[in-house]
Amino acid sequence: MEAAAASAAKPILRVAAVCGSLRKASFNRGLLRAAAEVCEDSVPGMKIDHIDISGLPLLNTDLEVDGGFPPAVEAFRAKIYQADCVLFAAPEYNYSIASPLKNALDWASRGKNCWADKPAAIVSAGGGFGGGRSQYHLRQVGVFLDLHFINKPELFVQAFQQPPKFDSDGNLIDAEIRERLKQVLLSLQAFTLRLQNKD
Amino acid sequence: MEAAAASAAKPILRVAAVCGSLRKASFNRGLLRAAAEVCEDSVPGMKIDHIDISGLPLLNTDLEVDGGFPPAVEAFRAKIYQADCVLFAAPEYNYSIASPLKNALDWASRGKNCWADKPAAIVSAGGGFGGGRSQYHLRQVGVFLDLHFINKPELFVQAFQQPPKFDSDGNLIDAEIRERLKQVLLSLQAFTLRLQNKD
Amino acid sequence: MEAAAASAAKPILRVAAVCGSLRKASFNRGLLRAAAEVCEDSVPGMKIDHIDISGLPLLNTDLEVDGGFPPAVEAFRAKIYQADCVLFAAPEYNYSIASPLKNALDWASRGKNCWADKPAAIVSAGGGFGGGRSQYHLRQVGVFLDLHFINKPELFVQAFQQPPKFDSDGNLIDAEIRERLKQVLLSLQAFTLRLQNKD
Amino acid sequence: MEAAAASAAKPILRVAAVCGSLRKASFNRGLLRAAAEVCEDSVPGMKIDHIDISGLPLLNTDLEVDGGFPPAVEAFRAKIYQADCVLFAAPEYNYSIASPLKNALDWASRGKNCWADKPAAIVSAGGGFGGGRSQYHLRQVGVFLDLHFINKPELFVQAFQQPPKFDSDGNLIDAEIRERLKQVLLSLQAFTLRLQNKD
Repeated sequence: MEAAAASAAKPILRVAAVCGSLRKASFNRGLLRAAAEVCEDSVPGMKIDHIDISGLPLLNTDLEVDGGFPPAVEAFRAKIYQADCVLFAAPEYNYSIASPLKNALDWASRGKNCWADKPAAIVSAGGGFGGGRSQYHLRQVGVFLDLHFINKPELFVQAFQQPPKFDSDGNLIDAEIRERLKQVLLSLQAFTLRLQNKD
Repeated sequence: MEAAAASAAKPILRVAAVCGSLRKASFNRGLLRAAAEVCEDSVPGMKIDHIDISGLPLLNTDLEVDGGFPPAVEAFRAKIYQADCVLFAAPEYNYSIASPLKNALDWASRGKNCWADKPAAIVSAGGGFGGGRSQYHLRQVGVFLDLHFINKPELFVQAFQQPPKFDSDGNLIDAEIRERLKQVLLSLQAFTLRLQNKD
Repeated sequence: MEAAAASAAKPILRVAAVCGSLRKASFNRGLLRAAAEVCEDSVPGMKIDHIDISGLPLLNTDLEVDGGFPPAVEAFRAKIYQADCVLFAAPEYNYSIASPLKNALDWASRGKNCWADKPAAIVSAGGGFGGGRSQYHLRQVGVFLDLHFINKPELFVQAFQQPPKFDSDGNLIDAEIRERLKQVLLSLQAFTLRLQNKD
Repeated sequence: MEAAAASAAKPILRVAAVCGSLRKASFNRGLLRAAAEVCEDSVPGMKIDHIDISGLPLLNTDLEVDGGFPPAVEAFRAKIYQADCVLFAAPEYNYSIASPLKNALDWASRGKNCWADKPAAIVSAGGGFGGGRSQYHLRQVGVFLDLHFINKPELFVQAFQQPPKFDSDGNLIDAEIRERLKQVLLSLQAFTLRLQNKD
């Protein structure tokens, strides 16, 4: 009973999960699906909400009217604003942030910055450095957006190394990476509670 | 007559000019308009073609069918491919590359990389560092795209310092910056000819 | 009396201040002197200790014997390890971190990482972006060192703009920058207390 | 005879090879030794000169007297100045450039910039990304120093993956990496000749 009371007193942390790739079978989207499962199974106190960014228009500030945004942008902004923290799945496109992710970052920064003061973590999958170059550009973006990224652990999934890490639908099938994903989530949870002065 | 012969022997360098902002009165677009004028007036042997990127869809590789691209993407790619070199007007959005520019960079890199082996230069206008943070991320992108950027001069226009640098339509009205723009163009021309072994 | 008791109960935060330039009349060193004065005058609860890095040898891990470091390195490492947080004065040398600062960062990271989990802030002075490019490279270093940098405010002092910001001995003589320095210190203090769960 | 004449007319390109690690058994130094052998064996027209940087003092501009440098610095600067192009072995220390390498870069940039307009290539060995993060910071430094880096191929040697890549003295023992090293050298040679208008 005391456990129940404690649980009731401790609100669930809401994580806005944003995937930088719009491709259906994206490995990075697969990482977010796996993160949601891992969270549900083994990270009590935290819940992952996948935030779709595929309907956002290409950023053009001429689309803003009297400080208002197109409906798809408004809906997206509200979801980011309400989250306690953010989990990015950040593929590397041409040694930097994927354009759809940069587009989402930019839209939610306009006017009242929706990312402000939120803890955040990044995971990525890809060839080469497993998305690594994208993560450091994203961290620099975070300075202006006032995101507080966890430093460790970092997760770079080398998607094309054997044995296969994902199936053809982009589902994560590697147990070791699933465990490392859990460590990222636990670190994000701990850092969020620490910044909220609740740890 | 000798001049005509020499001129006939020396083909005009075609510069693909790409602006990262879609806003009509964009200062960065204003820089490209000014560059086109400067080029016409005082940089013989080079011509600037403004390449519109506003009609590109948000990058999603599911839109590629049998290696083919949506028509707007095909048209854009062809223009980049045919250029001798590239001039980017690269505004800084949230300490990195503007999303519309990243989107254009990504589309023309898919399949056969259209940017490969082209000399390039960057100009930018904005607050703070005048777009500077964007330029260094773009240079890193250029490593993968195999662009050869000129090192000097760099041009960062601090758009909000007095006296005004642009009018309300985004036209450059500052003579000193116009001169520095000319130096960028001359450097791009010289580097392009050097890499083509024609200087 | 209660205030006195509360004050007694609240330990003073110790800030390790590290200057990347070894030049005596360095503007960046001047920023740290000014920060120490500002702290003493108007930031109760925090004290700045300048940590000299001029006596460190050039990093060479062959100088480590049985996990031990040269005496100058041991002394430097102890000072960093004992600090609650870190204030860097980070000049920009050739678009990146000054070599003496990188050398100090590297020595205190060897073996047991002395920087781990410390809040930190950066200030810099210089031409161009006022040291800005150095700050973003330093922030990337901080990911591995597990430093938690404040996001705002950033301070880039354009040292060569009129009116003069420093006298010929490198002393800060500009009141507005002194005020902005104070805001950096207050932000570092607040972030340190927040991460220590004491705010 | 014609071949001899052609050979006589074609001067040997001199490559200044600079290693960022001072450790005797450094893998990165091992890469440069291997590069020298590969060059001698199979890259006619190019010769690698290893430039020692271990005797340089820690950068302090107060050591400059009347525009003159300490003797070790003068000797180092002369060697860089005379080279046709540069090969860096750039280990990654704390997610950026190794301090001894940054120190060398800084010394040769003072006063008359000795790196100006030289083609360059980077190789690196290490854990994680095989030194990758260091290479991108070094490329940004190169913008100011006016180095022209080849874009491709990049070489990141993951030094701790099986099978072993180096012996305990830091000698490269992996044939595939030796071949990739050769490709880097050929690309550097071709880019140098192209920029000299001799290809």
